[in-house]
Amino acid sequence: MRTTAGWRIETPAGLVPIRTAAATTAELLADRAAITAAARDGGPAEPAGEAELLSPVTSPCRVVAQMVNYRSHAADSGFDPDRVPPAFFRKTSGSITGPYATVLRPEGVRLLDHEVELGLVIGAPIPVGTTVTEENLAEYVAGLVIANDVSARDLQLPKTQFYESKSYPTFTPLGPRLLLTGAADLARLADLRLTCAVNGRVRQDGTASDMIVTPARALTLLSRFQLLEPGDVLLTGTPGGTALRSPGPLAEKLGALLPAHVKWKVFFRRQGANPAYLQDGDVMTLRIRTDDGALDLGEQRTPVGSV
Amino acid sequence: MRTTAGWRIETPAGLVPIRTAAATTAELLADRAAITAAARDGGPAEPAGEAELLSPVTSPCRVVAQMVNYRSHAADSGFDPDRVPPAFFRKTSGSITGPYATVLRPEGVRLLDHEVELGLVIGAPIPVGTTVTEENLAEYVAGLVIANDVSARDLQLPKTQFYESKSYPTFTPLGPRLLLTGAADLARLADLRLTCAVNGRVRQDGTASDMIVTPARALTLLSRFQLLEPGDVLLTGTPGGTALRSPGPLAEKLGALLPAHVKWKVFFRRQGANPAYLQDGDVMTLRIRTDDGALDLGEQRTPVGSV
Repeated sequence: MRTTAGWRIETPAGLVPIRTAAATTAELLADRAAITAAARDGGPAEPAGEAELLSPVTSPCRVVAQMVNYRSHAADSGFDPDRVPPAFFRKTSGSITGPYATVLRPEGVRLLDHEVELGLVIGAPIPVGTTVTEENLAEYVAGLVIANDVSARDLQLPKTQFYESKSYPTFTPLGPRLLLTGAADLARLADLRLTCAVNGRVRQDGTASDMIVTPARALTLLSRFQLLEPGDVLLTGTPGGTALRSPGPLAEKLGALLPAHVKWKVFFRRQGANPAYLQDGDVMTLRIRTDDGALDLGEQRTPVGSV
Repeated sequence: MRTTAGWRIETPAGLVPIRTAAATTAELLADRAAITAAARDGGPAEPAGEAELLSPVTSPCRVVAQMVNYRSHAADSGFDPDRVPPAFFRKTSGSITGPYATVLRPEGVRLLDHEVELGLVIGAPIPVGTTVTEENLAEYVAGLVIANDVSARDLQLPKTQFYESKSYPTFTPLGPRLLLTGAADLARLADLRLTCAVNGRVRQDGTASDMIVTPARALTLLSRFQLLEPGDVLLTGTPGGTALRSPGPLAEKLGALLPAHVKWKVFFRRQGANPAYLQDGDVMTLRIRTDDGALDLGEQRTPVGSV
C-alpha cells in the first residue's frame, strides 16, 4: 500500500513501513529486498486512516485498457461476445486517484458510469513482439490492483474514441492494495470475483472466468505494438451491470439509419431517464477477491462529486 | 534537425552542430541559448546524408492525435464536417521513426494508408484546465514538424479504437525539420499546405485552413483532461485524399443493418480491390510549407516495406 507517509506492507497488526527510497511503483518493484525485509522483520505497525491511502500505482505511467472483454458486458453493450475484436485504448495516467478519493464529474457530463476492473501491474519490460503465456505470465506481471474505469458515456459514444471520456482527473481510482503475485496466484486469476456496489446495492458481480481474452493473451496482443515497462498497468475489462445498456439490436439497427446527431439525441434522452447513472453523493464500493478469500485485493470506496 | 551525430541547425551552407548536452527534444527546447549560439556563430557546416537524419521529436513522449479534423477528410470518410464531434486518440511514441526510414507493414495488414499531418511540438507545460488562444499559442507551441499518421485500416475500423491501428513501430515518421516558431509564424498556420505524394503522384493536397478545429482550440479541448509537457506532440488531422474512401451514406446505412462481421467482410472485399492502399516498394513524399515558402517544414520521404 502507499500512504501519504510512504510505502507500507499490510500485516494483521496494521501497516508496517517498507524501508525504501522508492518514489515510484517501478522503483518499489525493483526493491524487492526492502519488501521482503518488512514482511520478515515486521516493525511498529500503525493503523492507516483511509484518507491517507493513495493509489499504489504512481503516475506518470502507461494506463492501457481493454474494450469489451467480459461476455456479460458485451451483452449489455450490444456486442456479440463471439465476434467482438480485441481492442485496446489509452487512459491518461493523470486520471489515477486514490482508493478513497472523490470521483469528480466534469462540467456538463450527465451520464457518469462505473466499471470495476482487474488491473495488472507490470513488473518487467515487455518489449514489442513478446509472447506472454499462462506459463511465463508471472515474469511480466508483478501484482494486481482494483481499478474503476470511470466513464462519461455522453462523451464516449458520440466521440467513438474512448480516450477522453475515460481520462478526466479522478477517472481511474486504483487500490487500496497492490497485491504482489507469484505464478500460483496468477494461475487463479479466473477465480477472482469483481463486484461494484452503488450506495450498498450490488450492480456488477462477475468472475474473471467471463473474460473474452485472458490476461496472458491480452499482453501478447498488446505487445504487438506497445512496449510496457515496470509500473505500467493494464485494465482488463469490466463485467456486466454498468448503468449503460444497449437499446437492443433492433433499435441499434434502426438508429443507424438516422443521422448521427439525431441518433445520439434520441439515445441520450432515453439514457437520461435511466436512474442508474451516478449522481453526486453516490458512493461506489468495489471489491475483487476469490470466493475462498485466498486472493483479496481489498475494498475501494469512492464518493461521487462535481468539479 | 537531429542526426545520428547529434542536434543540428540548418543553414544555407549545411548543417551546423548545436553545442548542447540535450538528449531529448524537451532538453533541447530548454537549451535555447545553445540554439541561438549555433545560429549566430555558425561553424563548420557539414552536409547530412538522409540516412543520418532522425526524428527531431525523441521518444518517449506523448503522441496525441485528432480524429477527422479536415473538412475534406470528413467528406472522404463519411462524416458530416459540421457535426463530427472533436475527438482525440493516443499513438505509442514507440511508433515514431525518422523522416527517411522505411514504414513497415505488420504481418497480416493489407490496407495500409498514409495521412500527412501537421505536428505541434509542445514547448511549455499545458496543465489540465488551460485555455489556449490564438494570442497565447506561442507560449505553448515551440515548433512544427511533418508527421505521417500511418494507419492500418483493416485494424482501425473493426476495432473502432484507433490506438492499435496507428501505433505499430514505424507508423509515425516525423521530420526532417523541427521548425521553431514564434507568434508571427503561428499566426500563419492556416496558410500551410500539406501534400503527400505516392510514387511521385500527389494524393493529398490541402491547406490547414480546411481544419475543423484550430490548433489553439484543439489544445484547449485536449487540456480539459490531458496534461502536456515539453517534447510532446499533437497531430492535427489529415486533409482529404487518403486511400480510405467511405462507401457513401446509403451504403453505410445499409451496412449498419448487417451483422458487424458480415459488414466488414463486404467492406474489406471492396477496399481490397482499391489500388490506392500502400504496396511494398511504394515511396511516400510529404511536404508542408506555405505557398510563399516563408514557412517550410522540409520534405519527408519514406519507402514502404514489410516486417
